[in-house]
Amino acid sequence: MNAERAAIAAGPCGLSTGDDGSTRFAQWLAQTQRSIRDHVDGFVRARCVAELDPAGCWLPGQLMVDFAAGGKCVRSVFGYLGWLCGGVGESEPALRAAASLELLHAFALVQDDVMDESRVRRGRQSAHLRLAAWHTEQGLSGSAARFGESAAILIADLYLVWAERMLRESGVGASALDRAWPRYDAMRSELAVGQLADISNDANRVPTLNAVMDIARRKSGNYTVRRPLELGAAMADCDDTVLDVLGEYGELIGEAFQLRDDLLGVFGDPSTTGKPSGDDVRERKATTVVALADQLAEPSDRARLRDLWREKRIDEQGVALAQAVIVDSGAGERAEQMIHDRVEHARQLVDRADLAPSAADALHRMALLCTRRTY
Amino acid sequence: MNAERAAIAAGPCGLSTGDDGSTRFAQWLAQTQRSIRDHVDGFVRARCVAELDPAGCWLPGQLMVDFAAGGKCVRSVFGYLGWLCGGVGESEPALRAAASLELLHAFALVQDDVMDESRVRRGRQSAHLRLAAWHTEQGLSGSAARFGESAAILIADLYLVWAERMLRESGVGASALDRAWPRYDAMRSELAVGQLADISNDANRVPTLNAVMDIARRKSGNYTVRRPLELGAAMADCDDTVLDVLGEYGELIGEAFQLRDDLLGVFGDPSTTGKPSGDDVRERKATTVVALADQLAEPSDRARLRDLWREKRIDEQGVALAQAVIVDSGAGERAEQMIHDRVEHARQLVDRADLAPSAADALHRMALLCTRRTY
Repeated sequence: MNAERAAIAAGPCGLSTGDDGSTRFAQWLAQTQRSIRDHVDGFVRARCVAELDPAGCWLPGQLMVDFAAGGKCVRSVFGYLGWLCGGVGESEPALRAAASLELLHAFALVQDDVMDESRVRRGRQSAHLRLAAWHTEQGLSGSAARFGESAAILIADLYLVWAERMLRESGVGASALDRAWPRYDAMRSELAVGQLADISNDANRVPTLNAVMDIARRKSGNYTVRRPLELGAAMADCDDTVLDVLGEYGELIGEAFQLRDDLLGVFGDPSTTGKPSGDDVRERKATTVVALADQLAEPSDRARLRDLWREKRIDEQGVALAQAVIVDSGAGERAEQMIHDRVEHARQLVDRADLAPSAADALHRMALLCTRRTY
Repeated sequence: MNAERAAIAAGPCGLSTGDDGSTRFAQWLAQTQRSIRDHVDGFVRARCVAELDPAGCWLPGQLMVDFAAGGKCVRSVFGYLGWLCGGVGESEPALRAAASLELLHAFALVQDDVMDESRVRRGRQSAHLRLAAWHTEQGLSGSAARFGESAAILIADLYLVWAERMLRESGVGASALDRAWPRYDAMRSELAVGQLADISNDANRVPTLNAVMDIARRKSGNYTVRRPLELGAAMADCDDTVLDVLGEYGELIGEAFQLRDDLLGVFGDPSTTGKPSGDDVRERKATTVVALADQLAEPSDRARLRDLWREKRIDEQGVALAQAVIVDSGAGERAEQMIHDRVEHARQLVDRADLAPSAADALHRMALLCTRRTY
């Protein structure tokens, strides 16, 4: 018990906060990410050996191993931070439970890439295209593209099922799991319902900011920050006051994360995003930044943006036009301001809450990290 | 305890077996199916109100309600029979747990229909086509077919998540659930892996019987009979002897069920199957019956069958040709014989096992019912 208390006082992974808090946090984060990736990798490999290899599905298995642990672990880190807010100290089972969120995320990405016909993910060819290429190499008959999509959807199914299994088998206690399930269920449903609402939007119409923010909240914000935090905190049996603070913090940082993601989708460097620059415009994604530009632009620019969105295909010139309208209208600046406001508001919430200093410090640093997207 | 024992002695739903066992079983089955459908319907409606309606997704919700309880409940009935083999009597929570298998099945059907591009399911237009039609009616831009497929995949996701939630929230005890999860996980993985192996087969090549039986076992047989039975029996804490018998029975009846399904896919009446006659041939499905025909046919007929399978499109004449080769080669008769042998073998297993007479009787009758497919 004393050891535990000491660990809490010292901060995540036993690192104290202070002047050199930044370095120590970075070390803690790197170590936590490594552990998350190890847990995910171990789990997926074991399942492949047990389930995919006997059926001769070595390629899907290889692909599932490659992809699962290849992310930045944002959701798992937030999940684990939620746990640490409970003041019960570091815990391998809790870290494993949080790590299961990487598999849920892998499910969402592989499936979304099929629906959005995205060609690149995490710096390499997306799963359905790799599977389609295999189909062609094997000289199989029928449509390779169709095969690739179907196989990717099935891989996503397995990720979804394994994610839940990894959480259930993480080793956290039964009562912790009982508290986790309602939030886990809500998160999974929101993910599917958010995507449903997203694809039901008219692709050729520039969306309103309200509509986009609503979908972003359901589909991305909640699921990236808020729900993971709540999940971890519920497992650690945090009281309602803490859960409320984390919920509000999560909503704010989730929105800020989405705004940053949308900015990167228009202006981002492929080496940071793992996707071609301007891809969101090319795919005509209904993003906050485009909705802001539509709201703020001069009438003539607004008309040009709307015309562009109605075109069959958006080429490089079209991407440049959209980028110019977003800058000239002040939508870029406004998005930056919105990010800043949300991070600031979240900071105040955390400062006023009764959290262990190390947990509060980690929340502040994660808020900055994941809305700056510098890692 | 006495009341429970009386119920067991009297048979499922308190009906005794005997000369009029057939009528009584039919009554029990009808009542059980009604209860299963009510549980499924209630659960899906509640989830739609909570999750889909607030996001404005009324059409997917309506579709999910319509479809979920529209099947013959074969899997749920087997699941509940597994429970009854434990001799702990009828139980609403156990019935609700078994009913959750309808949602898992709905997931599989909606998703498979996208992958197989099936146009008809349960006597009406399949989900992705209904969703595509809505997209067109609304005058939305972009591909209606693509929207329909994506929306159907998301609906399938929700079914998959809700299925697990319905089982978890069924009200059966925690230790019963702990015994259920490994089997439930295995069933879900087998379903996806079986489908992966299925689509990885070369569509234009007539498959070997061994390959087809292996996929059928994973994808359909296990998941229709064996796993549901084991799931229910594990929840009721049956001992290993009973679990082994049910496992073997399940494998045999699952294979027989698949053979019957394959015969119906070639020769079936649309009013029985809910699908156009000869649909499996038109879709070039790798079925047991076609593999048998390939094995048994004269060389000239075999060549015609293989040529047919390599064609781009199989028309009515092609369907008639395949039907003729299947009949003339004796593949139809052989399949009937294989069904008969499996049902007979399963009967002997059940008779030798130490099961409550009413449970044994129900297993016999279900074996006949679902391999005759007369209901």
